[in-house]
Amino acid sequence: MQALSLNCGLFYRSDFLRPEPSENEALIRLSVAGICSTDLELVKGYAGFSGILGHEFVGVVEAVGHDEHRHWLNRRVVGSINIGCGGCDACYQSEPEHCQHRKVLGIRGKDGVFADYFTLPIDNLYAVPDEIDDDAAVFTEPLAAAIRVLKQLEKLSVDKVAVLGPGRLGLLIAKALSIHGYAVDVLGRSQASLVLPKQWQLETAMIDEVKDDQYHCVVDATGNANGFKQALRILSARGRLILKSTFSALEPIDLSKIVVHELNVIGSRCGPFADALTVLKQHAIPVTDLIDGRYSLQDGINAFHQAAQAGVRKILLHPHR
Amino acid sequence: MQALSLNCGLFYRSDFLRPEPSENEALIRLSVAGICSTDLELVKGYAGFSGILGHEFVGVVEAVGHDEHRHWLNRRVVGSINIGCGGCDACYQSEPEHCQHRKVLGIRGKDGVFADYFTLPIDNLYAVPDEIDDDAAVFTEPLAAAIRVLKQLEKLSVDKVAVLGPGRLGLLIAKALSIHGYAVDVLGRSQASLVLPKQWQLETAMIDEVKDDQYHCVVDATGNANGFKQALRILSARGRLILKSTFSALEPIDLSKIVVHELNVIGSRCGPFADALTVLKQHAIPVTDLIDGRYSLQDGINAFHQAAQAGVRKILLHPHR
Repeated sequence: MQALSLNCGLFYRSDFLRPEPSENEALIRLSVAGICSTDLELVKGYAGFSGILGHEFVGVVEAVGHDEHRHWLNRRVVGSINIGCGGCDACYQSEPEHCQHRKVLGIRGKDGVFADYFTLPIDNLYAVPDEIDDDAAVFTEPLAAAIRVLKQLEKLSVDKVAVLGPGRLGLLIAKALSIHGYAVDVLGRSQASLVLPKQWQLETAMIDEVKDDQYHCVVDATGNANGFKQALRILSARGRLILKSTFSALEPIDLSKIVVHELNVIGSRCGPFADALTVLKQHAIPVTDLIDGRYSLQDGINAFHQAAQAGVRKILLHPHR
Repeated sequence: MQALSLNCGLFYRSDFLRPEPSENEALIRLSVAGICSTDLELVKGYAGFSGILGHEFVGVVEAVGHDEHRHWLNRRVVGSINIGCGGCDACYQSEPEHCQHRKVLGIRGKDGVFADYFTLPIDNLYAVPDEIDDDAAVFTEPLAAAIRVLKQLEKLSVDKVAVLGPGRLGLLIAKALSIHGYAVDVLGRSQASLVLPKQWQLETAMIDEVKDDQYHCVVDATGNANGFKQALRILSARGRLILKSTFSALEPIDLSKIVVHELNVIGSRCGPFADALTVLKQHAIPVTDLIDGRYSLQDGINAFHQAAQAGVRKILLHPHR
């Protein structure tokens, strides 16, 4: 089968063996996959992964490892990406994303979805309702990550939020917060980046025009160290910064404002798939507006090049085009 | 009068004019002052302050700006260091430390206490109970900052805490937490630094021997970027880092663990003087064990040199010796 594999660089090859599902797994045939900024970081060396990339997908279950899972056959599915050990505290608390021994689809110890076929534990699968087509369902994983921010904010006394970075994840976060009643300002570095948020009826501003200490709550979805610095800059005393960005670079950052202003920096990662599917089923967010290009797996290297361009939001990969 | 003043370097001079208290202020004669790590950072250029340094003090009220404050005359006092504008949201919420227009004694816009005399608003003063002698009372400000950590932890579900950095502030934090029922491990870089925490009946360990992801709650009181990195290293998933260190250096720090492990970094600064005086009155913490040297103001430059040495905890300054 064909796949895009990372091994001291990203390669396309068509001679991979089709994987076999283990007893608790399904074999899934890819329908469509999305390139995420984490994939771009992995190519740059973040986390030291080698293997088949990719973790945002919609597919169809083609085989199962055990007969008791036969009811999954031929179902259209998405899947959560963390595979816990099953035996630790984090796993008992249903938080496999914090299991120290976890595998992560296409990120850590588990081949990903940029391939004709891949496997995933049955426990990770979610059936896609008929109301959600493939082009929308492929946003389940990033939308779940956006909804994670909502869950974290529910515990804080916040009603106004600045979302820094109007990229794919930033916009999903901004819209998820907005439809849940938060006043949201989307902050970007260029007017061009603010066109789509305006179309989505979101308030926008240029980050360079925002004065210091203006927001009590900021979500940093820029994916770079400069965004983090800007987020610190615009936060007011005792403000909250939800940090969504993982950046591989070791950047010098002055952290003294965290202490002097008693800021609270809260890391935020994966979110609930079920909630994301509910939002998608309601067509509450026009996620397909984020699609900027489509490529075949065979043309995957070019897909990565386009995905890395400034202003590009979501690039999709199909087995064939 | 004599004073230690920062102006492109630290200088001792004996020709300063005695300040005049304004209507809401007291004139205070210094009894004893402490050199804090913030003072050392200010000398290195942090925050761009120039003027008379110093903010940890015990003194006696020698004059007041208005007759209605006559009852303060001749009283032994300590004082909180933030002087708010009085008219903003932070000030209305009794949080002058977060007033954007605040002055800070010996740190920002207000001459400090390393002098024969200085002024401070009456509202900032706390009378020192007779049970607390000067050598203990001079620890009110750092002990209040330590108790701030306690106040922040009360809102979290935490019972075990690692305190990183067995310096003056770290030990005050560790002991304040310990006497309030927390299980505390004090972590240091050398065996020598752990002698006093052991004498104080605190559990200790060498930081380099602590494995990754071991603590759910860490207080970083090291005052340097390496300590912050170590704190991130030993935190477990969804762990809390109380950050006490302000460091002036722009250091490269990999922040991706904050996101991937969904850590919560909480800045922590000034604390409640009344609570600190209560602890001191009970003699619950042998604070005078932290005193490593005493100098006259005239010998203040040497005092700063000793205070900057590794392993030195608290250096006191007296008007005369």
